[in-house]
Amino acid sequence: MDILEILKAYSEDVDREIESLLSTLQPDELRESSEYLTKAGGKKIRPALTMLSCQAVSGSTERALKAAVAIELIHTFSLIHDDIMDNDDTRRGMPAVHKVWGEPTAILAGDTLFSKAYESLISTASENIPYEKVLDSLRILSDACISICEGQVLDMSFEDTFDVTLDAYNDMIYKKTGALITASTTIGAIIGGASEIQIDALRKYGENIGIAFQIQDDYIDLTGDDSIGKPVGSDLVEGKKTMMVLFALEKANSEDHDRLIELLQANDEAIIPEAMELLNKYGAIDHARLAAYDHVIRAKEALSVLPDSDAKEVLFKLADYVFSRKV
Amino acid sequence: MDILEILKAYSEDVDREIESLLSTLQPDELRESSEYLTKAGGKKIRPALTMLSCQAVSGSTERALKAAVAIELIHTFSLIHDDIMDNDDTRRGMPAVHKVWGEPTAILAGDTLFSKAYESLISTASENIPYEKVLDSLRILSDACISICEGQVLDMSFEDTFDVTLDAYNDMIYKKTGALITASTTIGAIIGGASEIQIDALRKYGENIGIAFQIQDDYIDLTGDDSIGKPVGSDLVEGKKTMMVLFALEKANSEDHDRLIELLQANDEAIIPEAMELLNKYGAIDHARLAAYDHVIRAKEALSVLPDSDAKEVLFKLADYVFSRKV
Repeated sequence: MDILEILKAYSEDVDREIESLLSTLQPDELRESSEYLTKAGGKKIRPALTMLSCQAVSGSTERALKAAVAIELIHTFSLIHDDIMDNDDTRRGMPAVHKVWGEPTAILAGDTLFSKAYESLISTASENIPYEKVLDSLRILSDACISICEGQVLDMSFEDTFDVTLDAYNDMIYKKTGALITASTTIGAIIGGASEIQIDALRKYGENIGIAFQIQDDYIDLTGDDSIGKPVGSDLVEGKKTMMVLFALEKANSEDHDRLIELLQANDEAIIPEAMELLNKYGAIDHARLAAYDHVIRAKEALSVLPDSDAKEVLFKLADYVFSRKV
Repeated sequence: MDILEILKAYSEDVDREIESLLSTLQPDELRESSEYLTKAGGKKIRPALTMLSCQAVSGSTERALKAAVAIELIHTFSLIHDDIMDNDDTRRGMPAVHKVWGEPTAILAGDTLFSKAYESLISTASENIPYEKVLDSLRILSDACISICEGQVLDMSFEDTFDVTLDAYNDMIYKKTGALITASTTIGAIIGGASEIQIDALRKYGENIGIAFQIQDDYIDLTGDDSIGKPVGSDLVEGKKTMMVLFALEKANSEDHDRLIELLQANDEAIIPEAMELLNKYGAIDHARLAAYDHVIRAKEALSVLPDSDAKEVLFKLADYVFSRKV
């Protein structure tokens, strides 16, 4: 089966569980604003990772469903609050929550999903999951939430400067997006009753997949087609700091360095060809490709300690998909 | 000892624990914006209630310190986000968090305190508190957080209408402020290892104290002196819906009803004497006084099942204080 079809099957269970969890919210305005983004599609890779990780060590996906929901709700909460902070108008091809209901209600919708995420993970305690494992999972979720906040503050602090090292960028992006992906696999493993070695393996898988995922996102922006909804090279026009841009800035001679910054600050589509040329001149795109591939290999290697299973096969496929996807 | 001195002693432990918990946040901007309100004073009644409830059933306050911190951080998180939503400039006599650091960082400071609250409560699991009780406490905290969000949406929905029944108001205000105060005492009791009867008693105490606290807040605004930092009657000038206003509107004849609404919408200090006269004409102030007193009595009665102790004495004093306080 195609990996996207497999993800869709997991996402249907997640969607059903989320709908039931949010159905009790009152008043209607809070329920509707909280549900809105959860019903707007998205590949739901994170909850699938949680269920697959659980399945890979215990054979059951059902055990991890409520934990998977918790992960997805934390992700959704962070999208809603990020869109307010970045003043983004759209998300998943629809108007952002704060554009539909206003900022106050959007802040509350995020806060509510945050609370509901905890409610969902806490409720696994009543489903034959040992209390200690639920508490371990809750600790990891809280750490991930703090990382997301730290990463977002760092990201905002990078906005007005190009004086950002690749290391500082990698730290920021791990906190902002990698930590929750790592939590997805780690919590799935814990809920599945994995051994320490298995938990460690799935944590490493998550860490590496998360980094590869982010690099690929930025790579698609520069090399993909327009079908993802934003024009190719839009990150360059917006002057976004990516691994590729920061790598080129670190390697470039002084003249090219200053020129690249000038281009990135121009906010003009006309700069795309010259900026791409500079990235290629310093091998930034090849470097990113290689880095992403390296992380995919490491993710797959980490799984070697797990017994063979369908879930393990899907995790392999997912790693390949992260590297090969075009959207 | 004076009740305020007693509260101060509890708050010193809470402050120290909070400072340590937040000290690891990075970058500085996130740490400083998250710490800011926690260092700005406040009576810290909620965490004291948690520690006193624990002490009243087990003899130890230390057991409940991290749970008390969780309650205080949830309270602080909700203040930060509320101030953004209500566009309030000041809090505890200082510029609001979003006025100092801007809205994006203020949203994140709130989110961070939310995460840290869970971290703190989860960490009690390592301190001789049975896992089951920690999970019960976490469930209650999540429910309270969801109530806070629901209450705030309801509160905002009441802003532009006087078509609000006293019942709808009571439901809103319980969700917005009462639920967390009830969680304070209930969690303290659970962490202290209380029996079901004791937990129920302290829950009832919290519910009643919470309602009395809110009524007294509104009463002080109408009858107190200016030393609390805002002029007497400012709630009337702002057209705020309080139990007193809604009681008067429910009891008033059609002419007085419409006149009171007119006054409340004038946004003019000159309306205070006439509005007060209308509230008094329908016994609204006496009604609120009686209702607050009734809740204080019920709170104290609920404690009858607890063994006599210093903590129980303080909880009695605190109930009296809620009714008698002038600020």
